[in-house]
Amino acid sequence: MPEVIPPDSVGLVEPQVAQFESPIQLESGKVLESFQLVYETYGTLNADRSNAILVCHALSGNHHVAGYHSMTDKKPGWWNSCIGPGKPIDTNRFFVVGVNNLGGCHGSTGPSSLNPATDKLYGPDFPVVTVVDWVTSQALLADRLGVDCWAAVVGGSLGGMQALQWSIQYPDRLRHAAVIASTPKLTTQNIAFNEVARRAITSDPNFHDGHFYEHHTFPANGLKLARMLGHITYLSDMGMGEKFGRDLRNQAFKFGILDVEFEIESYLNYQGERFSKNFDANTYLLMTRALDYFDPARHHGNDLAAAVSAATCKFFVVAFSTDWRFSPARSEELVNALIEARKPVSYTKIEAPHGHDAFLIPTPRYMDVFHAYMQRVGEEI
Amino acid sequence: MPEVIPPDSVGLVEPQVAQFESPIQLESGKVLESFQLVYETYGTLNADRSNAILVCHALSGNHHVAGYHSMTDKKPGWWNSCIGPGKPIDTNRFFVVGVNNLGGCHGSTGPSSLNPATDKLYGPDFPVVTVVDWVTSQALLADRLGVDCWAAVVGGSLGGMQALQWSIQYPDRLRHAAVIASTPKLTTQNIAFNEVARRAITSDPNFHDGHFYEHHTFPANGLKLARMLGHITYLSDMGMGEKFGRDLRNQAFKFGILDVEFEIESYLNYQGERFSKNFDANTYLLMTRALDYFDPARHHGNDLAAAVSAATCKFFVVAFSTDWRFSPARSEELVNALIEARKPVSYTKIEAPHGHDAFLIPTPRYMDVFHAYMQRVGEEI
Repeated sequence: MPEVIPPDSVGLVEPQVAQFESPIQLESGKVLESFQLVYETYGTLNADRSNAILVCHALSGNHHVAGYHSMTDKKPGWWNSCIGPGKPIDTNRFFVVGVNNLGGCHGSTGPSSLNPATDKLYGPDFPVVTVVDWVTSQALLADRLGVDCWAAVVGGSLGGMQALQWSIQYPDRLRHAAVIASTPKLTTQNIAFNEVARRAITSDPNFHDGHFYEHHTFPANGLKLARMLGHITYLSDMGMGEKFGRDLRNQAFKFGILDVEFEIESYLNYQGERFSKNFDANTYLLMTRALDYFDPARHHGNDLAAAVSAATCKFFVVAFSTDWRFSPARSEELVNALIEARKPVSYTKIEAPHGHDAFLIPTPRYMDVFHAYMQRVGEEI
Repeated sequence: MPEVIPPDSVGLVEPQVAQFESPIQLESGKVLESFQLVYETYGTLNADRSNAILVCHALSGNHHVAGYHSMTDKKPGWWNSCIGPGKPIDTNRFFVVGVNNLGGCHGSTGPSSLNPATDKLYGPDFPVVTVVDWVTSQALLADRLGVDCWAAVVGGSLGGMQALQWSIQYPDRLRHAAVIASTPKLTTQNIAFNEVARRAITSDPNFHDGHFYEHHTFPANGLKLARMLGHITYLSDMGMGEKFGRDLRNQAFKFGILDVEFEIESYLNYQGERFSKNFDANTYLLMTRALDYFDPARHHGNDLAAAVSAATCKFFVVAFSTDWRFSPARSEELVNALIEARKPVSYTKIEAPHGHDAFLIPTPRYMDVFHAYMQRVGEEI
C-alpha cells in the first residue's frame, strides 16, 4: 500500500473498456458475435501515433500492468518493475497499453461473462481461444486506439508468444517484438504439467463440467493444486532452495502423515489457496490450452525459420539462466530460426536465480539490457 | 508373458513371509507391536553366508525384484534387467533378497493391513515410517535369514537412500553400499512436488482422512494425479520429447477444452489410472514422507561427511545425465562428502536419455559398470 506514489510509478490508473459488436472469427472455426476487452493505458500517445507499446500478459496476468488502482492497493500492477517514468518501458516516452486477453477473468469477455445468446454465464461454452485469436482481438483494440503500428509489442512467457505471433500475423503493424522468457512452442514436459493441472481442476467434484457458477460453487481445490504445481515450475530449484531450503515449520518433525512439516509446503499451500479464490477455473483451462496449442512452425512443416519469414520487425529475445519452464535453449531455438531467416535479433541470457519468474524481477543486468533496447526503440519514434 | 523362461532369468519365484512378534521402536517414537515383511530370494546362500545382497526398493516398488510369479505374468520383477544369471547382480554367485518395505502395500504390514489392536485396517493410524525404520526392520530380516553381513546393500532412488542409511546405521553389517540415482536428501523442489502429490490424495473426497477402506472406496483420482505428476519427474524432458513430442491423438486439433489433444496427455492419464487401481493411497503418502524426512546429515549439524564418518563399507555411486529428480549434482554431493570423510568410493555418471527412470533401464554402459563393480564384490566373498 503506497503512502505516497513513488516518482517512478505511473501513479493511479483506471481500467477502460472497449466493446466490439462485430463478430470475431476464431482459430477453432467458432465465431464470437460480440465481446469486450478491458485495458489500461499509461503515458501519452504522440501526434503521429508512433510511440505505442503493447504489453501482453502471461497465464495469470491481466491488463493491470503498472501503477495502482487506489491508494489502498497492496501491490502495483504485475510488471510495475519495468514500466514507469525512467524505467525500461519509459512512460515519459511511450504510450503503453495493457489488455486483459479474450477469455480472461479480469473484465474482458470470458467464461465467467454473460453469454448474450443464452442470458447465462458462458462457462465451458466459451470457445477455446488461441494466441492467434488474442493477436486478432488486440489488433481490433489497436484500431480502436488509432494505433496503426506499435513501436513494440512486448511480453514475457505466454506474453512473449503473443509478441512473436504479432510479428508473423501483422508484420506491418509493429516495429519491434520483445520476446522474454518465452518459447516458440511448449515441450512435451510443458504440456504434461499443463495436463496434470487441467485434470486437477476438471476432476474436482465442484467443477460440474465447467458449469460450477450455476451450482454457486467453484473447484477451489483443483485450482489450488493446479497453481501449486504451476508455482513450482515458475521457480528454480536453486531459488526455492535459497529461500526455503529444508526449513521446518516447527522445531522438530511432527511425524504425522497429514502435518505440514516444511516451510515450502506451507508456502505452496498458501499461494495455491489465495490464487484459487481470485481466478476463474475455466479461464485457467483456456490459458493452459492456448499455451499447448501455440506452435507457429506447425503451419510451415515444423520449420520455424519459414514461420517467421514474413516478419519485418526487429526482435529482442531474453532468457534467464535458471528458467527450466522455458529454458534458454528454447529462446535460442527462436533466435537460431530468426538468424536463419535473416531477421535482426538481439539476444541476451541473464544470470538470475529466480527461474521463470525472473522476467518479473528487476535484476540489474536485466533492467540495463531491457532499458538499453527500449531506448533504441524510443529513438526510432 | 514368457512362453519359456529366458536363460538369464531367475525363473519362477515365490514370495515368503517373515513374521516378527517383538515390538519395533520407530524413529517417530511410536512402537509397532508386531509386523510382517514379505520378501523374495534368488540364488543360494553360501556356507559362510557371505554372498547375500539386499535390494531395496523405491517409492512404488516392492519385494518382487526379478523373475516371474507365474507363466502368465505379463512382466517380470521391477529390476529384472539387473538381476539374474550373468547379469550385474549375478544369481549364480549371489544370494539376493528383495523385501517389501514396512508400510508398503504388497504384503508387508502397512496401512492396508489389519491392526490387531483394533481388528480394523490401520489406515491413517499406521505410524509414519522412515528410512531409518526400514533399515532397522531389514536388519531383523537379515537376522532371520542368518545374514550377519551383506556382501552389498543395493538400491536406486529411495532404495539408494536405504543403502546409504545401512552404511551409517549398521556399519559392520555390509561390505558395499550401491547408491544409484539417489540423493543424500531431497531438495526444496523435490519436497514441493511431493506436497502437491499428497494434497491431491488427501483432498480427494474419497480419501475420508485416510479411512477410505471403511467407506469401501479409495481416492482414485487423487492417487492418479499424484502418479501423473510423479511420472513427469521420473522422465527427462528430452526422453519425453523423443517418445511423444507434440504428436496429436487425432489428425487435427479438436479445440474442445476437455478433449485430449496430445499423445502425452493420453499416456499420462493411462499411467495414472492404472497405478491408482494398484497402489494404496496411504502407503503412497508414507513413502513420500519417508523421502522428505531422509537427511542423515541433519543429526550432524548438516555435515554429510560427519554423518558418513562411521561407515566402513565401500561405496558405489551412479548418477544419470538427464535425471533431474535426483540430478548428478546430488550424487556428487554424496561422493564429495565420502571423499572428505576418506571413504572408498567409485562414482560414475552414465549418459542416458531416460531421466530418473534410467536406473531401471539396461543401458549398455550402465550394465557394464554395474557388472564390473559387482564382480569385484563377488571376488571378495
